[in-house]
Amino acid sequence: MLRVIVVGLGPIGIACARAVRADATQELVGLVDSDPAKIGKPLDDLGVEAALPTEEQVSDTPVVVTDVAQAVQRSAADVAIITTSSRFDRIAATLHECLAHKLAVVSSCEEMAWPSYGHPELAQRVDEEARLAGKAVLGTGVNPGFVMDSLAVMISSSVRRVTSVRCVRRVDAGRRRLPLQAKIGATMAEADFRALAAQNKVGHVGLPESVALIAAGLGRKVEPGSVQVSIDPVIADRPIESLVGLIQPGRVSGMHNIGRWTGDDLSIELDLTMALGLADPKDVIEIHGPVYVRAKISGGLPGDSATVAMLVNYVPVVARARPGLLTMLDVPPAGCRGRDV
Amino acid sequence: MLRVIVVGLGPIGIACARAVRADATQELVGLVDSDPAKIGKPLDDLGVEAALPTEEQVSDTPVVVTDVAQAVQRSAADVAIITTSSRFDRIAATLHECLAHKLAVVSSCEEMAWPSYGHPELAQRVDEEARLAGKAVLGTGVNPGFVMDSLAVMISSSVRRVTSVRCVRRVDAGRRRLPLQAKIGATMAEADFRALAAQNKVGHVGLPESVALIAAGLGRKVEPGSVQVSIDPVIADRPIESLVGLIQPGRVSGMHNIGRWTGDDLSIELDLTMALGLADPKDVIEIHGPVYVRAKISGGLPGDSATVAMLVNYVPVVARARPGLLTMLDVPPAGCRGRDV
Repeated sequence: MLRVIVVGLGPIGIACARAVRADATQELVGLVDSDPAKIGKPLDDLGVEAALPTEEQVSDTPVVVTDVAQAVQRSAADVAIITTSSRFDRIAATLHECLAHKLAVVSSCEEMAWPSYGHPELAQRVDEEARLAGKAVLGTGVNPGFVMDSLAVMISSSVRRVTSVRCVRRVDAGRRRLPLQAKIGATMAEADFRALAAQNKVGHVGLPESVALIAAGLGRKVEPGSVQVSIDPVIADRPIESLVGLIQPGRVSGMHNIGRWTGDDLSIELDLTMALGLADPKDVIEIHGPVYVRAKISGGLPGDSATVAMLVNYVPVVARARPGLLTMLDVPPAGCRGRDV
Repeated sequence: MLRVIVVGLGPIGIACARAVRADATQELVGLVDSDPAKIGKPLDDLGVEAALPTEEQVSDTPVVVTDVAQAVQRSAADVAIITTSSRFDRIAATLHECLAHKLAVVSSCEEMAWPSYGHPELAQRVDEEARLAGKAVLGTGVNPGFVMDSLAVMISSSVRRVTSVRCVRRVDAGRRRLPLQAKIGATMAEADFRALAAQNKVGHVGLPESVALIAAGLGRKVEPGSVQVSIDPVIADRPIESLVGLIQPGRVSGMHNIGRWTGDDLSIELDLTMALGLADPKDVIEIHGPVYVRAKISGGLPGDSATVAMLVNYVPVVARARPGLLTMLDVPPAGCRGRDV
């Protein structure tokens, strides 16, 4: 049984910890967060998201501690799930700590979907650290990590020539957690949204990384900085309820991100809309070339539960993968192998 | 550059050899077939399928020889693509020969999609041989190998619980090669089809293997012989042209295969129809559980070109994979990394 610690106990981390605890093939042995309000608490006391059905209550789950060293001192562990930050450079210290304690890592850190795009030198250093530690480090999630990148690469295995890839993801953010609704600008005035967008303070993190992952899966290399990203607000045309308040007509209900890259006889376009009240949520992957392939997931993959599933399902994969800083192009499909306790 | 030999020069083998030759990252160094009519011929003289546009003509391609030993005597090689038989036991000798010459192998052999289902002892022996040789052996293709099995497992990575998987594939066989149209019973009388079906002489090979692959990807084990397979003819309701002759109304236009397995809190159903004049060709993957996911490829993946693509795209993957008898659950997504010469 794989012993797992979860580092970063926001909504995704808490849900991962619950999923690990509910799984017969994994054991939850540690919880780590830097928030003083969480230290010393067991999983079931962490926020409203942690309210579990009675039959899933387990009394001897670990309590939250401040760092990985403390967690592994209390219990030996095999794998760390890290859900602390979208930015690779901000989780580098945690990665270092995990590798020092010989933990394999799976992380939802968006930039780790293709870490060398934004941080080539750091990626090389972490890769060396991971090889020295003999452990694998993997960034994954539903997006980036799956539905707008590695799934497209997987499907492209069935054709011999690709001239362009286009992925469209439309997410009804009304079904998503509050931090995400805030992140996409819900209730803002358009001008405020655009001002924040200009400072990279709203918008999806990971679109350039997804583009770089697809390109690599198609045998191309995307140079750092060469992905063009646009971000625009989606404007409500009617009053829409949200977790951050009522969105009045004319205010922002979400965002529309596009990432584009062209080079080396290939063009890639990733078109992501996340908004409250969005019609026709879906995921579409279009592969153009001599053979045209169009795959569609009606309704779209649900963002939060799918990211939690990816993280927990890839725990056994990183535990046996070759050492190094890996991406979804380096590992076999995990599959849903979890079993109820 | 990977040096590739192709063993088995039917339509799929010829198309693979052409694809390897047209690829800048692979080199076609050998052609092997036991048919005396093909021995000594270069690729471009092999059947009507080999007629290539003038700009793809290459004069120094190898000629067909009778066995792998002769091929590797003429040129060192890294990987063999084997397209000789649907049956694992019938290609075992060729696998043995390839491994003796230290070739990694990728094969369209349908039973190799999950070789331990039909031939557990042989699978173990080949696995040991491959490990001793330090080479990987992989069965792949579009079906089995991808669209009704490993792709479903890949998508299941995005959920935490699966109660059932259902894959539907509807292929318009009118777009397929003659051997396939014959294989599915086109132009037969219904009684003749049923008599042949009772002897396993018509029908798709690989459905139980796909079921076993999905089950393994979901953490379950399917015992040999436990997949229920049904086969029925599709009857023409109007005259339909085919490569084996005109199909009169009331005669067989194709086949409908279903593979089913239930056990260990999971049910799997694979529903495959291949027929001439079939409306609504498509691939659908449905994953049921607390989260429902439905992925659809409109029109369906084209069978022949996709199988060729899978074989050639997985050449670099098997070349660097760990030694052993592998399945699509053991290897990362290949992606379409081929480049024009």
